[in-house]
Amino acid sequence: MRHFIIIAGLLCLTVKADEGMWVYTNLPKAHLKSAYGFEPTPEWTEHLMKSSVRFPQGSGSFISANGLVLTNHHVAMDYLHKISTASRNIAEDGFLATSQAAEIPITDLELNQLESIEDVTKQVEGSVRAGMTTDEATAARRSTIALIEKESKDQTKLLSQVVTLYQGGQYHLYRYKVYKDVRLVFAPEFRIAFFGGDPDNFEFPRYNLDMTVVRAYENGKPAAIKHYLKWSTEGAKADELVFVSGHPGKTNRLYTVDALRFMRDVRIKYVLDLLRRREIALLLYGSTGAEAKRHSQDELFAIQNSRKVYLGQLKGLQSNEIFAQKQSEELELRAQVAADENLRHLGDAWSEVSKAQKAHNKILVKRGLLEQMHAFNSQYFMMARTLVRLADEKQKPNGDRLFEYQDGGREVLESTLFSPAPIYEDLEVAKLSESLSLLAETYGYNHPLVQKVLNGKDPQTVAEQAVAGTKLGSVAIRKLLAGSSPAELRQSHDPFIQMALAVEKQARSVRAQYDAIVETELQAYSRISQALFAVKGTSVYPDATFTLRLAYGSVKGYRTGGADVAPMTTLGGAFDHEKAHGAVDPWLLPESWHKAKANLDLTVPFNFVSTADIIGGNSGSPVVNRDGELVGLIFDGNIQSLTSSYVYDDDVSRSVSVHSAGIMEVLKNVYHAADLVKELGQ
Amino acid sequence: MRHFIIIAGLLCLTVKADEGMWVYTNLPKAHLKSAYGFEPTPEWTEHLMKSSVRFPQGSGSFISANGLVLTNHHVAMDYLHKISTASRNIAEDGFLATSQAAEIPITDLELNQLESIEDVTKQVEGSVRAGMTTDEATAARRSTIALIEKESKDQTKLLSQVVTLYQGGQYHLYRYKVYKDVRLVFAPEFRIAFFGGDPDNFEFPRYNLDMTVVRAYENGKPAAIKHYLKWSTEGAKADELVFVSGHPGKTNRLYTVDALRFMRDVRIKYVLDLLRRREIALLLYGSTGAEAKRHSQDELFAIQNSRKVYLGQLKGLQSNEIFAQKQSEELELRAQVAADENLRHLGDAWSEVSKAQKAHNKILVKRGLLEQMHAFNSQYFMMARTLVRLADEKQKPNGDRLFEYQDGGREVLESTLFSPAPIYEDLEVAKLSESLSLLAETYGYNHPLVQKVLNGKDPQTVAEQAVAGTKLGSVAIRKLLAGSSPAELRQSHDPFIQMALAVEKQARSVRAQYDAIVETELQAYSRISQALFAVKGTSVYPDATFTLRLAYGSVKGYRTGGADVAPMTTLGGAFDHEKAHGAVDPWLLPESWHKAKANLDLTVPFNFVSTADIIGGNSGSPVVNRDGELVGLIFDGNIQSLTSSYVYDDDVSRSVSVHSAGIMEVLKNVYHAADLVKELGQ
Repeated sequence: MRHFIIIAGLLCLTVKADEGMWVYTNLPKAHLKSAYGFEPTPEWTEHLMKSSVRFPQGSGSFISANGLVLTNHHVAMDYLHKISTASRNIAEDGFLATSQAAEIPITDLELNQLESIEDVTKQVEGSVRAGMTTDEATAARRSTIALIEKESKDQTKLLSQVVTLYQGGQYHLYRYKVYKDVRLVFAPEFRIAFFGGDPDNFEFPRYNLDMTVVRAYENGKPAAIKHYLKWSTEGAKADELVFVSGHPGKTNRLYTVDALRFMRDVRIKYVLDLLRRREIALLLYGSTGAEAKRHSQDELFAIQNSRKVYLGQLKGLQSNEIFAQKQSEELELRAQVAADENLRHLGDAWSEVSKAQKAHNKILVKRGLLEQMHAFNSQYFMMARTLVRLADEKQKPNGDRLFEYQDGGREVLESTLFSPAPIYEDLEVAKLSESLSLLAETYGYNHPLVQKVLNGKDPQTVAEQAVAGTKLGSVAIRKLLAGSSPAELRQSHDPFIQMALAVEKQARSVRAQYDAIVETELQAYSRISQALFAVKGTSVYPDATFTLRLAYGSVKGYRTGGADVAPMTTLGGAFDHEKAHGAVDPWLLPESWHKAKANLDLTVPFNFVSTADIIGGNSGSPVVNRDGELVGLIFDGNIQSLTSSYVYDDDVSRSVSVHSAGIMEVLKNVYHAADLVKELGQ
Repeated sequence: MRHFIIIAGLLCLTVKADEGMWVYTNLPKAHLKSAYGFEPTPEWTEHLMKSSVRFPQGSGSFISANGLVLTNHHVAMDYLHKISTASRNIAEDGFLATSQAAEIPITDLELNQLESIEDVTKQVEGSVRAGMTTDEATAARRSTIALIEKESKDQTKLLSQVVTLYQGGQYHLYRYKVYKDVRLVFAPEFRIAFFGGDPDNFEFPRYNLDMTVVRAYENGKPAAIKHYLKWSTEGAKADELVFVSGHPGKTNRLYTVDALRFMRDVRIKYVLDLLRRREIALLLYGSTGAEAKRHSQDELFAIQNSRKVYLGQLKGLQSNEIFAQKQSEELELRAQVAADENLRHLGDAWSEVSKAQKAHNKILVKRGLLEQMHAFNSQYFMMARTLVRLADEKQKPNGDRLFEYQDGGREVLESTLFSPAPIYEDLEVAKLSESLSLLAETYGYNHPLVQKVLNGKDPQTVAEQAVAGTKLGSVAIRKLLAGSSPAELRQSHDPFIQMALAVEKQARSVRAQYDAIVETELQAYSRISQALFAVKGTSVYPDATFTLRLAYGSVKGYRTGGADVAPMTTLGGAFDHEKAHGAVDPWLLPESWHKAKANLDLTVPFNFVSTADIIGGNSGSPVVNRDGELVGLIFDGNIQSLTSSYVYDDDVSRSVSVHSAGIMEVLKNVYHAADLVKELGQ
């Protein structure tokens, strides 16, 4: 039987080895020493932290003194598409810069490198006065956070973000150096980056060269980097201790039993239905021609990836196994809380969560369609929404604004809104018409809101006319509109501005309801956290928040379906795997690999698994050994790891990496990337 | 603007030309004479009727004195898969019998050929006594129908089915000769049968050789056929009058405005969500290997086809256009009814329909999941359901049984239940686990019914264990169980029998509710029909019922998106179309075509469109000219025809056919099918 260890499982006497996504300021030093005989020094820790890089939706690391950054092909793919054209398909065919001058500037890509972490819990909580209502307390915290971020930014010029940890138990200020000039150095062919495609995604054994190398520039020159990871020639070895330094996006390991039920029975179903709609719509669109396929491919893979994640989660949750464990742990903690008069005031936190789930259930669909724009799946609409809100929000004091319109997020907002990246009009029509149909299907075509948006026409016609009529394709127009007053904006005849205005009132209303629910939940989980702290002490890691974390574990296989799965695959295995699947797409290796086969050492390791505790957002994270050398590159988890959003299990759940020796072997003998190899010291 | 003409549109003074799926006993002779100067003789009519053939899910026609039958590749595809193996993929690679002895017997395929039509309205209605409740009247009609069918079968040995026409306005007894020994003569490669695949499906211009030729046998010898269609060498010509003789499945042209709304806002959404789930599940399953793909392909295409149909319907219905027209016609008829004291008693029929829609709305999901088995998508489950019901139903008098268990349907039931066709266990697991998850997602995992079925396990595990544990794969076991008493059956430990029993009570209960709703609707539409008859006379065609109908129209192009679409494509166009799409799947012509290209007359017509009024079920129908010669083979409608379930429109809606000259050209010069060509008199 699979044995699930969860954060509430810290109530158990024994903590399962290798669990946790640890904050750099609170590493599990005692455990690392006792279990692995390893003691991270402050220098080791600072070096690894500063070598780590955050991508907009993933992780990476500096790997040379001249600004080389390693990440996954799938983390960079969105950007590879943006710099691809019909005649030069970099996302599909790969790229190797023949010289530094030939490196291609990447539209929109910004990298963050963490410089410091500061605990600002006292300042944030200090702004809450006795007698304040919950709403007032929230507003006070938000306003203080906005102030702290602004002051830090003004003083240090660094990107400054306050992060809520432990469900409000702590607030940390993270300061990042931002690199805005990033250029492409190397990407392999899509076929080998995503060898096995959707069917092999989240499976192991695997054979993927899921890597891309970019270079950070400053003032038009390669950035001079002090902290970067040394490349390990040998790479990861079986059973050795490894560390993963990256940015896990979101976990929910404190979820109550009721919250898990809500996830299983309501939220995942909603999301999966939406993903299936979008997947089919993109498949249909992509089937209309080669260019359509190229334009929609990236989004399609992202959707298929999510679909597989949620199906995996659902499978894990649709069983009594997780729930029985969760339930007994929850009952035990609640009994301890009830028995301790100092904790008794925390006792209704669980029912507060349940109440919040019920309230969320009522607005889930409305929020999805209107506020999350599931009924308006369009880049133009997203821009229109931003412009409409910006006009209103900028009238308010910084602390009163919706958080994404506060000064701290201004740069991100503007770089998105003013991005010169191409918008594919046919794709916009396909996505918008499909999602407008969802609106009509959900509320009924005759519903006043639907009629307000569609005005008696069919979704396809409305989408075609809106896309044909909008001026939002022009960055200059968007900049102009971003300067508008609310009154000016309301006079715009742009069909997307009109569409955004048509649902703005309802969208804002459901947003406000949702924010209140989230705040209630946050307060309740904060109290559950307090109960846990009181019972188990503070040697606990916080849920993931897309901030830098350190995970650790062993390179180790696992047993499933009655068979042992070895921890490593080899380059030769990729050729065998291709053959076993008849060498048809998506199991077709690139020509470059076939040509190079005779020159390759086929016994070199290619991919490997470890027990390190990771989740989405960790993609592109470096895997390092005790000496801080790069031995691998995280790119996936196995299918058994998909419930790790809620629970950790080191029995069969594994993270999947590309091996540093495999990368080097193919850089040398498939891609003949002599300059790159040399810069990596090999 | 598109001009919709609908059955309620018969209220208009002018009937649009070419509308209607006419019963052979009530052809629109006056209109044919005035519009086309054509008068069908009794001989012409009988010959065409008796040359027509019904397939289990489509249409066909006799084309030689020795039993040759022409239909679509996609109508036969299910059967082509059944006779395919891993080493001989007939469904994919095609087949040509080198001699009569080489013709391959096709598992499970039975053909029906209509021998006679008899009006039995008086007998059926005569069984209804004054003072009976609606339920009693329904039971009386059903019981009489069952009796008529049984007596006819006993007397004539012909398959005898009573069909309800005009929503209960008439009852006709159809008698069919059944051919049970059917063998494959010719099928082209899947690539050319379905050239352009899902993207081109329902589009025009088209280039599909969507044909298959089988032969009916009697007593081990080719059946001697008196009525068969002569092959037209020249084939269909632009603007000529053509007839389509086939089996349109179902239309709903009497639907009230409320019924159309219910369709648009509720039913189509439910069906599309289900189809998307199944499409993705089959895509995932098919991606696991070549055999998995082969086993699931047929079902996948059927689902994609349905998905495209419903998306097309939805698009047509999500607009005020159809509704404005429908609404004004409905108001006009209701005003006439209200103004006429002889009709006034029919006036509440529309609100009866609305009430029925509301009642249907309440049980739609429950009926779908439990009675329609959407939560148990498995052949094993379907067999278990049949066995469980059979045990109970056979205890009852014939007339009291659920209709599919009455004696008239016994042969169909048994040929399905005892079919020796292979069942693919992995596919069963994939489909069942996905649908059990739907059950859990819909009701919530902890719902008593879900727990009864899943018993605390996850859907995947339940599906795996059920498929591994069942004995229903054996025809002998199924025959044994079919002889069981209800008590014996309840003692079976077979996991599928247990699963079917677990939901039987709820399924039967919702079935009874649904049957009552259908009966109410039928009564209401019957009254609306009466009102129509009273106002417009009886020169109206009934909604489609998968019985033989005659449609007619002209070979004629149309105008869409500001451009004219010519009525015909050529063989050469197929090669151009392949090139325009980069010669990648699904736009890849078979090798045989590339090899033969130089010998082909590329100017020969390949596909063509006509205004004949058809719908799903017409696939495989012969298209004949005034002389009763076969000039084409129906295989599709264009995308604009997808709302023809509800309305007919001869402006842009078209049926799509393969051209008889194109077929002959490739039979001769691509497939070198000399014997077949000779047998067709060419």
